[in-house]
Amino acid sequence: MEMFKVHSVKAAREKLVENFKDFKCEVEEIEILEAEGRLLGEDIHSKLNVPHFRRSTVDGYAVISKDTYGASESLPMFLEVLGEVEMGKAANMKITTDKAVYVPTGGMIPEGADAVVMVEYVEKLDSTNITISRPAVSKENIIDVGDDIRENQKVLSKGVRLRPHDIGVLSSIGVDKVNVFKMPSISIISTGDEVIDPKEELQLGKIKDINTYTLSAMAKEIGLNIVERRVVKDNKELLKNTLKECIEKSDMVMLSGGSSVGTKDITTIVINEMGEPGVFVHGVAMKPGKPTILAKAHNKPLFGLPGQPASAMIAFKVFVEYFIKNIFNLDEYEDRFIEASMTTNIHSAPGKETYQMVYLEREDGEYKAHPVYGKSGMITLMSKAKGYIKIDEDKEGIKEGEKVRVNLF
Amino acid sequence: MEMFKVHSVKAAREKLVENFKDFKCEVEEIEILEAEGRLLGEDIHSKLNVPHFRRSTVDGYAVISKDTYGASESLPMFLEVLGEVEMGKAANMKITTDKAVYVPTGGMIPEGADAVVMVEYVEKLDSTNITISRPAVSKENIIDVGDDIRENQKVLSKGVRLRPHDIGVLSSIGVDKVNVFKMPSISIISTGDEVIDPKEELQLGKIKDINTYTLSAMAKEIGLNIVERRVVKDNKELLKNTLKECIEKSDMVMLSGGSSVGTKDITTIVINEMGEPGVFVHGVAMKPGKPTILAKAHNKPLFGLPGQPASAMIAFKVFVEYFIKNIFNLDEYEDRFIEASMTTNIHSAPGKETYQMVYLEREDGEYKAHPVYGKSGMITLMSKAKGYIKIDEDKEGIKEGEKVRVNLF
Repeated sequence: MEMFKVHSVKAAREKLVENFKDFKCEVEEIEILEAEGRLLGEDIHSKLNVPHFRRSTVDGYAVISKDTYGASESLPMFLEVLGEVEMGKAANMKITTDKAVYVPTGGMIPEGADAVVMVEYVEKLDSTNITISRPAVSKENIIDVGDDIRENQKVLSKGVRLRPHDIGVLSSIGVDKVNVFKMPSISIISTGDEVIDPKEELQLGKIKDINTYTLSAMAKEIGLNIVERRVVKDNKELLKNTLKECIEKSDMVMLSGGSSVGTKDITTIVINEMGEPGVFVHGVAMKPGKPTILAKAHNKPLFGLPGQPASAMIAFKVFVEYFIKNIFNLDEYEDRFIEASMTTNIHSAPGKETYQMVYLEREDGEYKAHPVYGKSGMITLMSKAKGYIKIDEDKEGIKEGEKVRVNLF
Repeated sequence: MEMFKVHSVKAAREKLVENFKDFKCEVEEIEILEAEGRLLGEDIHSKLNVPHFRRSTVDGYAVISKDTYGASESLPMFLEVLGEVEMGKAANMKITTDKAVYVPTGGMIPEGADAVVMVEYVEKLDSTNITISRPAVSKENIIDVGDDIRENQKVLSKGVRLRPHDIGVLSSIGVDKVNVFKMPSISIISTGDEVIDPKEELQLGKIKDINTYTLSAMAKEIGLNIVERRVVKDNKELLKNTLKECIEKSDMVMLSGGSSVGTKDITTIVINEMGEPGVFVHGVAMKPGKPTILAKAHNKPLFGLPGQPASAMIAFKVFVEYFIKNIFNLDEYEDRFIEASMTTNIHSAPGKETYQMVYLEREDGEYKAHPVYGKSGMITLMSKAKGYIKIDEDKEGIKEGEKVRVNLF
């Protein structure tokens, strides 16, 4: 009965990855102006050189560097000016020995020249003659053809998250549309006889739904598309029909369990009735988040998260967010985190990965993490915290003054 | 001629803040499901207690704690079970001496009880009698009325960025719509005779527009609404008409200058023709980003950014992003950054705030920052970097091994 064996977080994640190693996401073509923050769905090679002509990086005179050798303030070199390159125009002149052409920053370097002398080192004698008081070396102040990006060069790799500078790279090589990954769609089901919609009037024994709201927001934050958001009473048929519909409509489904023993059973039974292989992880050695369920039906991942809002959020981070990062092979820099030192001893649950909410203070340029405590099930446990730290299962806790990595909410 | 005095970054920012201390953003009412990541435009006070009834945090028996004093495994206490509280229903029984009622996790605590004994410490003798092997203390395993959120309590403050747990707090108190700030709108103008749209065919001397793309993406990233995105030739009348139109249509305007001397002059003249007070910062002691212009016309901020893509991006971070953070009083945790140690000596420009692009490697659990060098104007200078470090104007550089804060792109 492997189903009832509690898995370590690591083992549970491995099973998750193994079960969905064929999980694929489609791509869609969009304008690069809409692509910021999206994951690139193809490798991009440049069809052109950037720049595709030699450009000056300064305002100055294009010269043959050899003509300037030995130039100094006391012994300037005399050159004849053939003219001026206009911005945005081809440079038509050709530079020969002892000749120069004025080029603005970004302007095209005329044929024959191999360096640009900055205007600071040039004195104009009259309309066609200048002196140069400093020698130039070959290639000085010139960006060569393809120096920035070379033709056929791979400029961006499939899977990268497109950031403003990547959008700039795309525009510079004339790519105005790219294929990006379509993010998976997800449905969210919150179960429990006590759960009502926030718009409904409260009655004794009832509480307003939190989980479909926090989990929708978290799913949105990592780019998932929310398809359905449902609150279902603890009724097997009702849950079964809802889950079935959600599986049909979306790529993934999250359920957050009602907190009573009866409900937990119903969730597991209903998930297992959805198809093979059903539940493959039931219970994880983590705190909070122990009653987490991982399952597969119709080749889609189903996440059974705990009913407590804080536990559901942590389980979301540990499994749903992890799953998405794993599919797209996202790097650790995606996370927002801060290194801090702990202000008190923290005890952890032995044999369990423990997640401790903390708030932060800055003292002498260093971050201090203080634990946030509260009774299980409180939503304010999360909202008072700035983030959380993870204590590995083989650690007994964190000592006062110990350095910790705080994952920011 | 204060206009031509180069300002320190600090002084330029102070002038920016001073000039727009009356800059106001309107609010708009939206559904909380759409509110993730938005800035709250009002204080939120709770109209109700959360929970609004006493809840059990465990599956167990509600008791009068006094009745359990002295209970142990060798000397258990006998209690009579009056019944069971159903999830989502009011608890109608009243507990008196030596009586108990079963309550599921999250269920309502009956009147008279002041503690819940977990099922683990209870033995069922028959359908109405139990023994308890561990004493309970008053309030044990109970969340009291308002323990999580108290009626009239301020739960969220104006200006906070709404995160998933905040959305959960709102749903828990039955708030389904909130006022959030409307982010300012912005227009982006890129000038230069050499600049063409990425869709246009390249000709010698021309380059494809980068700045309106990178700057749009950056503006979007911080939540600004892009109104116009224009590429304008270095023509005074054209620029004047475009700028005028953009000022009318949007709350802020960014221009990124063509790089030639002539263009810079045009930009300044045109901005000054838009109205009083015009340009108030022209040139900033920073590298890159020196030719940055800050101006005000029709009570709106105008940002004249450098033409080089990397310089424009840094100037955007230093002034436009700073301005938005300042308006909304956003905290430093908004930034994504990492502490790293520098792998080589870095020289900075004395008297200038220097921004150095870096890439990161992880070694022995520590981040190492390597400088990225490249010729000015290269877009790949940014795309090869993972972020940048700032070297203060009074520092001569960074020493190998020195700790730095890397702002991640």
